[in-house]
Amino acid sequence: MTEHLEKEIQDAQEAVTKQGDTVRSLKASLKEGKSEKAEVDAAIQKLAELKIVLEAKQKEFEKATGKVSAQSKEALRAALAGVLERRMFYIPSFKIYGSVAGFYDYGPPGCAIKQNMTQTWRNHFVLEENMLEVECPAVTPEIVLKASGHVDRFTDFMVTDAVTGECFRADHLLEGHLEALLEDKKNPPSPEKTKEIRELLASVGELKQDTMAAALKEYNVRAPGTGNDISPPFPFNLMFKTSIGPKGDLVGYLRPETAQGIFVNFRDLLYYNGGKLPFAAAQIGNSYRNEISPRAGLLRVREFTQAEIEHFVNGADKSHPKFASIAGLRPLLYSRALQMGEEKKAQPMSLGEAVEKGIIANETLAYFIGRTWLFFIKVGINPERMRFRQHLQHEMAHYATDCWDGEVETTYGWVECVGLADRSAYDLKAHTSMSKIDLTAFEKFPEPRMEEVVKVVPNNKELGAVFKKDQKAVKEALEALDECGAMELKSKLDAGETAKVAASTGQTFDIKPGMVEIKKVTEKVTGKTYTPSVIEPSFGIGRIMYCMFEHSYYTREGDETRAVMGFKPVVAPTKATVFPLVQKPALNELATKISRDLTSAGLSNIIDTTGNTIGKRYARTDEIGVPFAVTVDFASVDGDGSVTLRERDSMAQVRVPQSEVASVIRNLVDDRMTWGDVTATYPAQKAQADDE
Amino acid sequence: MTEHLEKEIQDAQEAVTKQGDTVRSLKASLKEGKSEKAEVDAAIQKLAELKIVLEAKQKEFEKATGKVSAQSKEALRAALAGVLERRMFYIPSFKIYGSVAGFYDYGPPGCAIKQNMTQTWRNHFVLEENMLEVECPAVTPEIVLKASGHVDRFTDFMVTDAVTGECFRADHLLEGHLEALLEDKKNPPSPEKTKEIRELLASVGELKQDTMAAALKEYNVRAPGTGNDISPPFPFNLMFKTSIGPKGDLVGYLRPETAQGIFVNFRDLLYYNGGKLPFAAAQIGNSYRNEISPRAGLLRVREFTQAEIEHFVNGADKSHPKFASIAGLRPLLYSRALQMGEEKKAQPMSLGEAVEKGIIANETLAYFIGRTWLFFIKVGINPERMRFRQHLQHEMAHYATDCWDGEVETTYGWVECVGLADRSAYDLKAHTSMSKIDLTAFEKFPEPRMEEVVKVVPNNKELGAVFKKDQKAVKEALEALDECGAMELKSKLDAGETAKVAASTGQTFDIKPGMVEIKKVTEKVTGKTYTPSVIEPSFGIGRIMYCMFEHSYYTREGDETRAVMGFKPVVAPTKATVFPLVQKPALNELATKISRDLTSAGLSNIIDTTGNTIGKRYARTDEIGVPFAVTVDFASVDGDGSVTLRERDSMAQVRVPQSEVASVIRNLVDDRMTWGDVTATYPAQKAQADDE
Repeated sequence: MTEHLEKEIQDAQEAVTKQGDTVRSLKASLKEGKSEKAEVDAAIQKLAELKIVLEAKQKEFEKATGKVSAQSKEALRAALAGVLERRMFYIPSFKIYGSVAGFYDYGPPGCAIKQNMTQTWRNHFVLEENMLEVECPAVTPEIVLKASGHVDRFTDFMVTDAVTGECFRADHLLEGHLEALLEDKKNPPSPEKTKEIRELLASVGELKQDTMAAALKEYNVRAPGTGNDISPPFPFNLMFKTSIGPKGDLVGYLRPETAQGIFVNFRDLLYYNGGKLPFAAAQIGNSYRNEISPRAGLLRVREFTQAEIEHFVNGADKSHPKFASIAGLRPLLYSRALQMGEEKKAQPMSLGEAVEKGIIANETLAYFIGRTWLFFIKVGINPERMRFRQHLQHEMAHYATDCWDGEVETTYGWVECVGLADRSAYDLKAHTSMSKIDLTAFEKFPEPRMEEVVKVVPNNKELGAVFKKDQKAVKEALEALDECGAMELKSKLDAGETAKVAASTGQTFDIKPGMVEIKKVTEKVTGKTYTPSVIEPSFGIGRIMYCMFEHSYYTREGDETRAVMGFKPVVAPTKATVFPLVQKPALNELATKISRDLTSAGLSNIIDTTGNTIGKRYARTDEIGVPFAVTVDFASVDGDGSVTLRERDSMAQVRVPQSEVASVIRNLVDDRMTWGDVTATYPAQKAQADDE
Repeated sequence: MTEHLEKEIQDAQEAVTKQGDTVRSLKASLKEGKSEKAEVDAAIQKLAELKIVLEAKQKEFEKATGKVSAQSKEALRAALAGVLERRMFYIPSFKIYGSVAGFYDYGPPGCAIKQNMTQTWRNHFVLEENMLEVECPAVTPEIVLKASGHVDRFTDFMVTDAVTGECFRADHLLEGHLEALLEDKKNPPSPEKTKEIRELLASVGELKQDTMAAALKEYNVRAPGTGNDISPPFPFNLMFKTSIGPKGDLVGYLRPETAQGIFVNFRDLLYYNGGKLPFAAAQIGNSYRNEISPRAGLLRVREFTQAEIEHFVNGADKSHPKFASIAGLRPLLYSRALQMGEEKKAQPMSLGEAVEKGIIANETLAYFIGRTWLFFIKVGINPERMRFRQHLQHEMAHYATDCWDGEVETTYGWVECVGLADRSAYDLKAHTSMSKIDLTAFEKFPEPRMEEVVKVVPNNKELGAVFKKDQKAVKEALEALDECGAMELKSKLDAGETAKVAASTGQTFDIKPGMVEIKKVTEKVTGKTYTPSVIEPSFGIGRIMYCMFEHSYYTREGDETRAVMGFKPVVAPTKATVFPLVQKPALNELATKISRDLTSAGLSNIIDTTGNTIGKRYARTDEIGVPFAVTVDFASVDGDGSVTLRERDSMAQVRVPQSEVASVIRNLVDDRMTWGDVTATYPAQKAQADDE
């Protein structure tokens, strides 16, 4: 029964897509005088009818099954993509050359939304928290990414079609294969097999090269499309490689994340901050990942904008002074326990409780989870379709203390839009070790303390006699020993043994008893040197934008052909439109004046004097998500001088004095006023006959 | 006499630099408790004294010679660089790994200025002119840059040291060598030789490979430092190369300019704009040039931010509707005639006059010159040290109609910060030809016209008989002929000759009389298809920032040790500081409240409750160019509730009610109010004793 329906939905969707293309090409011809207006109108009418058919089928399916059909998801995605591409929110890059997978351009409204979103991020995080913002190059010399581990480990497993050479991600192939097995109605796997497949599916992302190879072999996974044999999986580094300078001997990569630029600047940033910790640095910029076979539109791209924060803090104290301000927030948390439990569902929980119960590791991490949640809501993500999912133990790097992903529900499933990780002191230690530059902070005690410390006193005479010209290197190697190293050496020498000590020159020296004195002494200590821990919230701006698009898209009640992008005013690319009700010089003049007032108030706006019906003009601006519309009519010029102000989602209208309209909209955009405040302040205006 | 002085200036500069390093390292030790405050203070005192000596020597030199000494330029540059690096406006990237030439990071104040500058640019150009802003990837497939000519021609000539292999730019080497010859006091060149050298110097940038090789040989140019032989010059492509996707068969480059992203989107942008011309598209983003041996700090870097506009217009009409709004502006113009003339000096001239006299090619180009001039003034470039220099004929590409560079005077000489070029229809034609996608616009005539057009009517029967399976290709080739091609063919066929016609398949066919009829007919024509011309203003944001830094830097009258960055409020990284006069809870509390008010008004601010003297606090904020300071004193909490507001450059102070101070500063930053308005409105406050 539902299979029949699914087929019908699919056919209806195809008809809508085809007719949409027809309408667009007719419109283009109309502009060049090659088609007639009546022809275009008829095609539009036909399109509207087809959309109604599609919508009805989808509703029927939802009623019958109680769930959103895959086709309905597909249909939503396709309808949204239609609006987004038609209105140039984004388009595939290099389109006239056939495009390249994984690259997208933002057109005018997409560009404006991205600006608004990064500016909102900057205000919400950088300004509000006095973060130190930096901007570093994308081209990065190899040594930096060697230190961070990206050169050696930033890889995906790849397999190739043994005949065509086409490349695939091994994990995607295996997942697809296993899911197909589970859904196979003709040869359903046994209960034991099903359990085995499910377990393997859950761990696909963590398989090592040998286990991945074994799994692909065991399940006889073949190349998609051709059914050919596939190669064994091998690691493919995802960084774009290049060469810096004319000689060709300096390898560079396009950074795979912006974070490293902050770590390598830690010393200067600490100095800039007056030597005080904790402090946070932030960077907004482009990162690059040479994905093996990118699909999923804006969600998996090869060049993307990140906004990353590195909050440096003394690992011994991860409390946060502003924790109380977010402790009462109750986002959906999907903790490790909930993921392992029966229901497998996120639950709302106050962040205060989560820290108290040890579910979230510390206050600072929880603080950023709370601030992140507020940011997502501010830019238009539905908080009921957003959750914070904790990494399972085996998903985390060995050095990480606790990690949470901010995930948003879309037609693609739950999409990771932000990662929040307590990375301990790993990053700074890695760069210290590679650069030999000290990346530590100094904690001055309120009062000097008497502490037992280990002293290493080389015997210069003895060292000189034995090591001659290497004396200096040996001495430095001994003095560079940390507490553990020194005590280990001491125990060997005390036992009369010879011990090896490695110098920074790469040499190793044999140290014999008498060459060095190692002792514990009690000293006055004024403070302590330590490598700070880092808590890293890392945002993918393009993903947040796409999720926001899905959460903003709806169609007008009763007219399923009319798409609306319900953008929050703060991110909307255009804040207002200005229309004269009819085309008269006096009305056009006033509309132009109001448009200028809006521009002066920093409000992007569109003035439309085309003479189309008001209803048509609203329909056009709904698609680009303009939240407010100002209409100028005869009363505006001859009567009381007021204008109509309309809000997009409620379609409610009020009369506002023309001199106040710019500041009212400014206040609405800045969240200093709600639409409720506006309707309470100004008289309502009944909708005109041709309004909707 | 002056040589002696020059040496003294150099020594004094070195002493200042050395002492500056000492102070910095002492300060760092102080923070870790390893040095004493008295020691630091003494070192600072010593530094101040050394700076006074240096300044005095420089003044003496300027008096004696009437010009700014090279050392004084060097000194200014070094002093400025000291402030910029110490305050983290920018720092060399990857510093802990020894840095890589041509890469810089922006630290917190630099980052904020860059944000402010691009936002000002966006408001001034994109919003004000309703431009279509786009954002395209930096990674670009080869075919796009093949079409644009960058793959084949975006090169500099390079030479290498025959022994060490070190790489140099051939033009830089030749220039340096020739300049040294001219300045050689021991063996001055003859008048004839001098003339020859000067002429060669003027054309170094335009030499071809063979003439460059000949010049290097003739003047026996050798490798700097080593004096070794150099290789012959060879072209080195300045694009960073990479590979897209896992297969390694798709070559990509990091874009050398943002413009191409706009050109390849022309068709969609035209559709977005309702098919109407003229319109402009804009893009702000990073571009990449793998410079051979970058020096000159921020002026020649390998990764930089561009802001580019492509204004598409019908080549037949380059008038501009808003031309009158800028026709009265009088920037310094350095026309071709002035450059070839005796004085070699730019002159102020109204843009209206320049267009009328044919000095600037058209209104649209002049309009952008005017808008650019206003932008530069807005962000803090001194208009008396900025000129627009016209390209000489031989500097322009063959297709360009007219080009002007916006140049700013600095210690490095005149620096090109913006290029404004009328590029005719070259770019769109190049991409049409490579992509085979039509990048034209359609001009609909107000009334259909009767026009004589050339009709090509292939004789299908004849073609079929002769060309068999190639018939279609021949037919298409004939129909694709433009008017000239068709008439040329007709004249040959009419003369009974056989003519060759090239098909898009690459084949060539012999066309004989009778195979095609070509005739002129009079038809009703509704409009015309044409490839739009493009006028391109292209801004280098980093260069403008650096020039702005030089124009903003000064020292306090009477205290040459106190550096001030006189940033315009709109670009200043921090708009205001808030100080309590002394450390008292009530004052701190009010200061905190005012700081919050400023943040709410979107004004970045620093609150300083360190208890340093007011004078010291001002000195600190002068260096990062904070334009306004609010001081809270006892009268603010116990008296009339007013606070002191101080302007950085005049150091004048007024008393402003605390409730008004945020909006006053907001108005000052937004240029809605001048400091003159403020002093006229509010009572003056006499400076406190310890104020300066």
